[in-house]
Amino acid sequence: LLGLMSTPAFADDEQLKLMNDDNQWTQPRKDYSNTGYSRLSQINKSNVKKLKLAWTFATGVNRGHEGAPLVVGDIMYVHTAFPNNVYALDLNNDQKIVWSYFPKQDASVQAVLCCDNVNKGLGYGDGKIFLQQNDGVLVALDAKTGKAIWDTKVTDPKSGSSNTNAPHVFKDKVITGCSGGEFGVRCYISAYNIKDGALVWRAYSTGPDEEMLIGKDFNKANPHYSALSVYEDVNGGNKLGGSFKAIPKENLKYPEANLGVRTWLKPQARKDGWQTGGGPTWGWYSYDPALNLMYYGTGNPGTWNPDVRPGDNKWSMTIFARDLDTGVAKWGYQMTPHDEWDYDGMNEVVLWDANGKKLASHFDRNGFGYTFDRTNGTLLVAQKMNPFVNWATSIDMKSGVPIKDPKYSTHQDYNAKGICPSALGVKDEQPSAFSPKTKMFYVPLNHVCMTYEPVESKYVAGQPWVGSTLTMFAGPDGVMGGFMAWNGLTGKSAWYNKEKFSAWGGALVTASDLVFYGTLDRWVKALDAKTGKELWKFQVGSGVVGNAITYGHKGKQYVAVLSGIGGWAGVAMNLGLTNETDGLGAAGGYKELTKYNAAPGGGAMNVFSL
Amino acid sequence: LLGLMSTPAFADDEQLKLMNDDNQWTQPRKDYSNTGYSRLSQINKSNVKKLKLAWTFATGVNRGHEGAPLVVGDIMYVHTAFPNNVYALDLNNDQKIVWSYFPKQDASVQAVLCCDNVNKGLGYGDGKIFLQQNDGVLVALDAKTGKAIWDTKVTDPKSGSSNTNAPHVFKDKVITGCSGGEFGVRCYISAYNIKDGALVWRAYSTGPDEEMLIGKDFNKANPHYSALSVYEDVNGGNKLGGSFKAIPKENLKYPEANLGVRTWLKPQARKDGWQTGGGPTWGWYSYDPALNLMYYGTGNPGTWNPDVRPGDNKWSMTIFARDLDTGVAKWGYQMTPHDEWDYDGMNEVVLWDANGKKLASHFDRNGFGYTFDRTNGTLLVAQKMNPFVNWATSIDMKSGVPIKDPKYSTHQDYNAKGICPSALGVKDEQPSAFSPKTKMFYVPLNHVCMTYEPVESKYVAGQPWVGSTLTMFAGPDGVMGGFMAWNGLTGKSAWYNKEKFSAWGGALVTASDLVFYGTLDRWVKALDAKTGKELWKFQVGSGVVGNAITYGHKGKQYVAVLSGIGGWAGVAMNLGLTNETDGLGAAGGYKELTKYNAAPGGGAMNVFSL
Ligand SMILES: O=C(O)c1cc(C(=O)O)c2c(n1)C(=O)C(=O)c1cc(C(=O)O)[nH]c1-2
Ligand SMILES: O=C(O)c1cc(C(=O)O)c2c(n1)C(=O)C(=O)c1cc(C(=O)O)[nH]c1-2
Repeated sequence: LLGLMSTPAFADDEQLKLMNDDNQWTQPRKDYSNTGYSRLSQINKSNVKKLKLAWTFATGVNRGHEGAPLVVGDIMYVHTAFPNNVYALDLNNDQKIVWSYFPKQDASVQAVLCCDNVNKGLGYGDGKIFLQQNDGVLVALDAKTGKAIWDTKVTDPKSGSSNTNAPHVFKDKVITGCSGGEFGVRCYISAYNIKDGALVWRAYSTGPDEEMLIGKDFNKANPHYSALSVYEDVNGGNKLGGSFKAIPKENLKYPEANLGVRTWLKPQARKDGWQTGGGPTWGWYSYDPALNLMYYGTGNPGTWNPDVRPGDNKWSMTIFARDLDTGVAKWGYQMTPHDEWDYDGMNEVVLWDANGKKLASHFDRNGFGYTFDRTNGTLLVAQKMNPFVNWATSIDMKSGVPIKDPKYSTHQDYNAKGICPSALGVKDEQPSAFSPKTKMFYVPLNHVCMTYEPVESKYVAGQPWVGSTLTMFAGPDGVMGGFMAWNGLTGKSAWYNKEKFSAWGGALVTASDLVFYGTLDRWVKALDAKTGKELWKFQVGSGVVGNAITYGHKGKQYVAVLSGIGGWAGVAMNLGLTNETDGLGAAGGYKELTKYNAAPGGGAMNVFSL
Repeated sequence: LLGLMSTPAFADDEQLKLMNDDNQWTQPRKDYSNTGYSRLSQINKSNVKKLKLAWTFATGVNRGHEGAPLVVGDIMYVHTAFPNNVYALDLNNDQKIVWSYFPKQDASVQAVLCCDNVNKGLGYGDGKIFLQQNDGVLVALDAKTGKAIWDTKVTDPKSGSSNTNAPHVFKDKVITGCSGGEFGVRCYISAYNIKDGALVWRAYSTGPDEEMLIGKDFNKANPHYSALSVYEDVNGGNKLGGSFKAIPKENLKYPEANLGVRTWLKPQARKDGWQTGGGPTWGWYSYDPALNLMYYGTGNPGTWNPDVRPGDNKWSMTIFARDLDTGVAKWGYQMTPHDEWDYDGMNEVVLWDANGKKLASHFDRNGFGYTFDRTNGTLLVAQKMNPFVNWATSIDMKSGVPIKDPKYSTHQDYNAKGICPSALGVKDEQPSAFSPKTKMFYVPLNHVCMTYEPVESKYVAGQPWVGSTLTMFAGPDGVMGGFMAWNGLTGKSAWYNKEKFSAWGGALVTASDLVFYGTLDRWVKALDAKTGKELWKFQVGSGVVGNAITYGHKGKQYVAVLSGIGGWAGVAMNLGLTNETDGLGAAGGYKELTKYNAAPGGGAMNVFSL
């Protein structure tokens, strides 16, 4: 028994040791907490203007290069968009390629990637590099040689499911997700044994509690999160094109079981709508080793036409905290019950502490910035990240339910106008960073509104099942994006910069109070974390949708970021689509991207130093 | 009449004015003389170590990015490998894309490009940007708007012909070539009217004098260049696997007419072998406005199996000087009569003056560096560029004929070993530079030897007709490349640096005595022109097969070079071919490239400044 136990314990220690070493970057977001924070400070406010490109590495792959490289010891591991090649570069030897891995994936997989050929990067642990291929295969590669050690099939593209997330190594498990919210997939999150790839647990986003790994203690501290219905239909609700009035906490019926089935009310587009109910899990996951809880969000309910799925559609749009070893959910909070706008709840959950409290913050697509007590899910803060958010006026802090504005409700065959934010949210996959020094979050933002017209759509397994037509346009600032510093305790932004386009790349913040991120118009920027003042910028080869990171090598600090435009904002450009509604509405809103980028975007690793 | 004349005169003046302005780079090789020389000197030996990347632009296209951008006024024009996209970047506005041009080319064209999906760049003149597409279409684009003004079909991929050359604007003509030496194409060079794209003249590389635009005054100063046969068969010549002894000048029969027909002796692989005789013209052309002569070289005779085409195979492997207005040839010198190794003679001819003489120098694939009196073709210097050249011991300076070493003759079904250089020559398409200040040439080099086994091969129109199997390996230096300074008067190198791989990118030399070029292992380098000492290097995203250039903008000097590995050296890597003989022998010789480059190579423009 001791023998059995010792291996996971060792793996865990190794992870913690690695992520405490700021010369390395061994987790997608640097650490279990998803902070994107580094204590490195050689590059500081006074010398950052001298930052220059040290080297670049073209991946030879086009389209969206999301995520970031890993730096483990003296090796940098670089991944690419589809077909998800992996390169191990020797930092001691002018980045010579130690090994490369070229997955053989069927080209048809690309057809089930909703939002471009993206892949959010690699995981590391136990001497292995983990690659989650778009075609659903999770593969463990020997970090030294690139030889495949084990592989397993997580999702099946034939059913419309796929993967774009980075595998996350937490202790002795590899956690990976599922994409397919636009294909009527019933998604899940899975934990695999780091040693041999055996499935340890799998938790669905919809369906019976048993398959969702929801037990009796679920939402113990906030049983009202488990209410059967949080809205009262007004003027017929879905059925007659009315709207939804939040039910005060006192009138909610809770706790209820099997909400993953019972909040998919009749009439559904399909019998048992939860079976094709979405809830994709393609984001960034976090983990608290002390609580042994992992955190992640689920995405939109399928299909986008809300009229054909009355009810809260639980547990789409939900942040879950699950026991890492068993997968059993400790708490779950649904941010956007009965979604009418595709406000996927899958954005990262960042763990931090303040005033002796264990907190978790989350910047949701729906435009609200949330802070929770992460031990039990109690909602502490829920504020609009930008005043242009109009689908809801506020979140009822007692019930946790958004107060919807009926003006912006959507219904089949009605073209709802002026909804803010657009489907891609005030923030999408681009992860924020948190500095324990400034106690501030640094959040890359979209500033996009939309028209949204739900339409009838028939489910065919493996085929797109979107059920809505949309157009996108710049929000009231007249630009498509922004970047802000956010106070997670007050729910207010400390500073806010406009960006011409969505800031679709993830943020890095360092102990020298510098914030780094890249933009779709090809700038990599460094800001003063205190004021938001731009201190430096550099024009890379293609728009940035990757996350900035930093590492140290031989006493020198480096900042690294993938370029290669893509993702939802870039998909229309990459494919040369020009009808306003093409690319799920991105073609119109982002048409100016072709003035800043060659199409399709060419991928490259960019590494900067003083 | 005055009106008719004034336009060409104006166009000519404009060209000369533009190429005299060192802030611009309006010809493929900077000027009519093909020098690759700039008088800019802000970047100098003492500050070059501070050179850093100013910006990059990923083209979103993979494979060999040969050639260089043009800089006309405040606009940089960037081209790509197939499908030959063109971008106009506004240097006044952070390189914002003013216009882009996406040719619609049939993907099947790629099958008739022998040596990767390359394109050597754009031409400029008369307010038009000229693009020679791979599929044979030459198109004139409005330099301001990118709108197509005229287009014309130069070659036809269905017959195996294609284009990879840059169009060259000389006075009022656009000159363009033909590829297809490996497809049995009878190639030519063509001159089009810059105004409307009307064909002005076309000169074939083989065939009757009439079609070759060879008149009575051809080779007047050196009539022996027009000998019927320069070799005497020894031990049966082609027919019995023997070799070829150079005939002394006194015994040559000259001048003779119609050698483009009559030096294709019987038995040919096909009747009238000159009809499928190659002589491709895909190099860099030069022009002397005072003499009104343009210079270029023709490539290999088809097929590579020498046994099936006895005779000198004129006028393959020939440098021609032609009257720009009529195309009529003034002189022609065949460097490698009866080629047995694919030593295409298409490398650039550089025009320069010394000791009151009008000279032309040429660094041939066959390993000899030649200097001519460019007024009449008289051969002044012909020396080995590196002692490892072994197929010939020397050039007979009286006759101009190479003295072949029978040991390295090749014959059908015999695997000739240890031939140096390999088929890609001591230098291939990578153009040299010439500094009028140092009076030296700066020459990027291959250092590769080969085995070569001619095989029977049947001609099928539009299909490869190579007729030889080869392997390549490093020459005696143990490396695959080099870079040297060469004295065109003495025929000796002043200094010689080894390179791990072929230096497949073109050279730039500046008035501050700096030489710039890029390498296949991703370095862009600056050397001291006087000593060859490396003063600076930078690691770009992919191997360099483009030509370094320089320009000035708002008082600042920039150095620019395309990266994106490819061309013959990179084609096997780009296609993932690994059999030694794949990629016409490149796969074996260049297999180490995969340790330095992602495959396929991703294209990018790299611009450096202090
Ligand atoms: O519902 C889904 O399964 C799903 C998957 C993905 C994805 O995996 O890329 C995205 C989305 N939805 C989505 O809604 C979205 O905004 C989005 C943006 C991006 C991106 O990479 O830029 N992916 C996705
Ligand atoms: O015979 C021909 O038509 C032909 C064409 C080309 C070309 O157009 O790229 C090359 C060659 N030959 C050739 O022999 C050769 O070495 C070569 C190198 C390259 C290159 O771009 O790297 N092209 C070509």
